[in-house]
Amino acid sequence: MNHNHYCIIMAGGMGRRFWPYSRKNQPKQFLDLFGTGETLLRQTFDRYKQFIPQENIFITTHKNYKELVANILPEVNEQQLIIEEEWRNTAPSIAYASHVIQKINPNATIVVAPSDHLILKQDEFGKAILKGMDFAAQNDKLVTLGIKPSRPETGYGYIQIDEEQTDDFYKVKTFIEKPALEFAEIFIKSNEFFWNSGIFIWHVNSILKAFHQMMSDICPRVECDVPDFTSCPNISIDYSIMEKAKNVYVQLCDFGWADLGTWNSLYDALPKDQNHNVVINSNTLLYNSQNNIIVMPEGKLAVIKDLDGFLVAAKDNTILVCKKDDQDAIRKFVNDVEMKFGEKYS
Amino acid sequence: MNHNHYCIIMAGGMGRRFWPYSRKNQPKQFLDLFGTGETLLRQTFDRYKQFIPQENIFITTHKNYKELVANILPEVNEQQLIIEEEWRNTAPSIAYASHVIQKINPNATIVVAPSDHLILKQDEFGKAILKGMDFAAQNDKLVTLGIKPSRPETGYGYIQIDEEQTDDFYKVKTFIEKPALEFAEIFIKSNEFFWNSGIFIWHVNSILKAFHQMMSDICPRVECDVPDFTSCPNISIDYSIMEKAKNVYVQLCDFGWADLGTWNSLYDALPKDQNHNVVINSNTLLYNSQNNIIVMPEGKLAVIKDLDGFLVAAKDNTILVCKKDDQDAIRKFVNDVEMKFGEKYS
Repeated sequence: MNHNHYCIIMAGGMGRRFWPYSRKNQPKQFLDLFGTGETLLRQTFDRYKQFIPQENIFITTHKNYKELVANILPEVNEQQLIIEEEWRNTAPSIAYASHVIQKINPNATIVVAPSDHLILKQDEFGKAILKGMDFAAQNDKLVTLGIKPSRPETGYGYIQIDEEQTDDFYKVKTFIEKPALEFAEIFIKSNEFFWNSGIFIWHVNSILKAFHQMMSDICPRVECDVPDFTSCPNISIDYSIMEKAKNVYVQLCDFGWADLGTWNSLYDALPKDQNHNVVINSNTLLYNSQNNIIVMPEGKLAVIKDLDGFLVAAKDNTILVCKKDDQDAIRKFVNDVEMKFGEKYS
Repeated sequence: MNHNHYCIIMAGGMGRRFWPYSRKNQPKQFLDLFGTGETLLRQTFDRYKQFIPQENIFITTHKNYKELVANILPEVNEQQLIIEEEWRNTAPSIAYASHVIQKINPNATIVVAPSDHLILKQDEFGKAILKGMDFAAQNDKLVTLGIKPSRPETGYGYIQIDEEQTDDFYKVKTFIEKPALEFAEIFIKSNEFFWNSGIFIWHVNSILKAFHQMMSDICPRVECDVPDFTSCPNISIDYSIMEKAKNVYVQLCDFGWADLGTWNSLYDALPKDQNHNVVINSNTLLYNSQNNIIVMPEGKLAVIKDLDGFLVAAKDNTILVCKKDDQDAIRKFVNDVEMKFGEKYS
C-alpha cells in the first residue's frame, strides 16, 4: 500500500432522514441497516483498509458520537478521530482533517468518503479509488466520483460533464441539485449526466489551497491544534468548494454504488421479495402488499395487508408509516415530533 | 333490587379478532380498550350491578382466565365464577350457569350478556333490562334484545320481527346472519329488521326447558356438580336454541349500543378527530390520514402519513397494519402467525 494515501471518513451526520430507525444518539452510520451484523461505519472502514494503510484512515465525527466510533472501531487510535465540537456541515470538518493530515504528511493524497454508502463491487471500487488517487497526486485537481445513472433518480445530485481531460476524467460543466423527474429522465437519456457520489479525491495541498482561496474565513479557525468549530460557517464542501472551484474533475465510475441517504435509496439498494418488498431484520407476514420497506427491531413481527409503496419502521417507542418515497416529509416529522413531544422520541 | 334477578356475564372468549391488541393470555374483555382505565369486563359488571344484586351476577370464563377475572372483580366470590374447562362456545356454558342458578333460586329470571359491549345510555339500558325481566318472569318466552339499526352495518346479525305480542315485545320471524351490504341497506329502510344484540333475558326454567327439548345431549354433561365440557358439542346459544325455539321474542330497545366485536365496530363506537381518525392510548402525529384507528401501548408514538381507512395496532412484539374493515382477515393473520412462528406472537 502507498503510505501517501489517506482517507477521511465522514461520520458526524445526524442521519435524521432515517428516523425513527436512527435516533439522535444513534445516527444511521452507527446502525446495522442491512441486518448483517455490521454497522455502516464498520463496513466503510473495512472497505478502505483493503487498499489504504489502516493508520492513515481518519474519522470525522461530532463529539457526541466519539465513544460510539471508538467502540465500533477499537483498532483506531485517538489521533485518527477528528472531533467536531459543533455541527458545522462538511466544509469545516474536512478543512480541519486536511490540516491534521498535512502536518503528518505534506505529500498526502486523500479520499474523502461519507460513511453511509453501499458499494457492491469492492474490487472495481478499490481500482477506481487508486486510479483517482494517482490522478490527484499528479494534478492539482479536485476529483469527484461520478456514477453512470441506471434510473431517473430524483434523490441524487447530478454532474454534467464537459470535455475529457484524460482516461475517465472529465472536466465538470455544472452540478445539478436533486432534479424533478422530468429532468432526471432527460439526464439519463443523454450521456452527459452522472450521479454525484459525494466521494472526493485530492492532494492535501490542492484542497487546502482551495479553502484558502474560497473559504478563507474557515482556515484560521481550523488550522490550529484546538479548532474553533463554533465560529465556523455551517456549510457543505459541495456548496463552498466543489460548485465554485475551476479545477473540479469528475472520474466516471461503475462499482455498484448507492447513497443510503434516504429510506427510498435503501429500498433501491436491497434485495426484494417477489412482490418487491424489502424486509430488514423483521419477522413479517405480508398480504397483498408491494413495493414496501419494512424495518423492525430484531425479533419483532409485522403483519401487513394492502400497503403499496410504504415505509413501516418501528424502533423503541416509535412507529412510522408513510410513503417510502416521501423523503422530505421525514425531516418535518422529526421537527414536529420535537415540537410536540420534546426529546422523548427523537 | 329484585332478588330473583340474576345476570350471567360471558367472559370466556378468546377475542382473537382484536389481535395483536388482545393476546391469547389477555383477550379483549380484559383490556382497557377505550383507555379509560377500566377493562370491558369491569365496565360490564358495574353496569349490571346498578340494578341487579351484586351477589346474583355470575361470570362464565375459561379456566385460563379465572385469575384475570378474580383480579379484575375482587368483590366477586368463588361461587360466582363459572369455570369452563374447555372452550365449547356459549351453549354449554349458559346451560351450566343456568343449572347452577336454578339450584340456588328456582324462581330466577336471568339476563345473559357478553362482556364486550359498549352501552352509552345507562339509564335507558337499566329500564329496558328490568322491563325485559318482568316480561320473562311472567311468560315462558326467550327474549333477545333488538336494537334499531342506525346504519347498514354488515358486521352484525339482524332479526326480522313478526306481529307484536305486547308493548315493545315482538315475535321473531327470522334471524339473519351478517348480511351483504345490499341487504343491510334494504333492512334499514324497512321497519322490520333490528340488530341482534346478543343480550338475552329468560326465566331459568324457560331456558333449561329449551335445552332439554333442543340440546338434550348437553344437559346430563352440565347438570351436575362437576360439569364435563370436554364431551359437550362446540355450539353457540344462537344456533342451538335461539334460531330454533318457537317461543323467541325480541324486545325493541334504544340505549346507544355497540358490539365491540371487531376493530371496525370499535372505530364506529369511539369519538373521532376532525379527519375521522380514532386514536386510542397513543401519542400520534397524523398527516393526510383519514378514517383510521390507531392503538398503541401507553407512551408510544405513531407518526402516520397517507393512510386512509386503516388499522395500525401495536402491542408488545407485534405490529399490525391493515384495512380496518377487513374483519375476516384478522383470524387468518392469527392462524398464519401461529403456523409460521408458533406461540411467540399470539
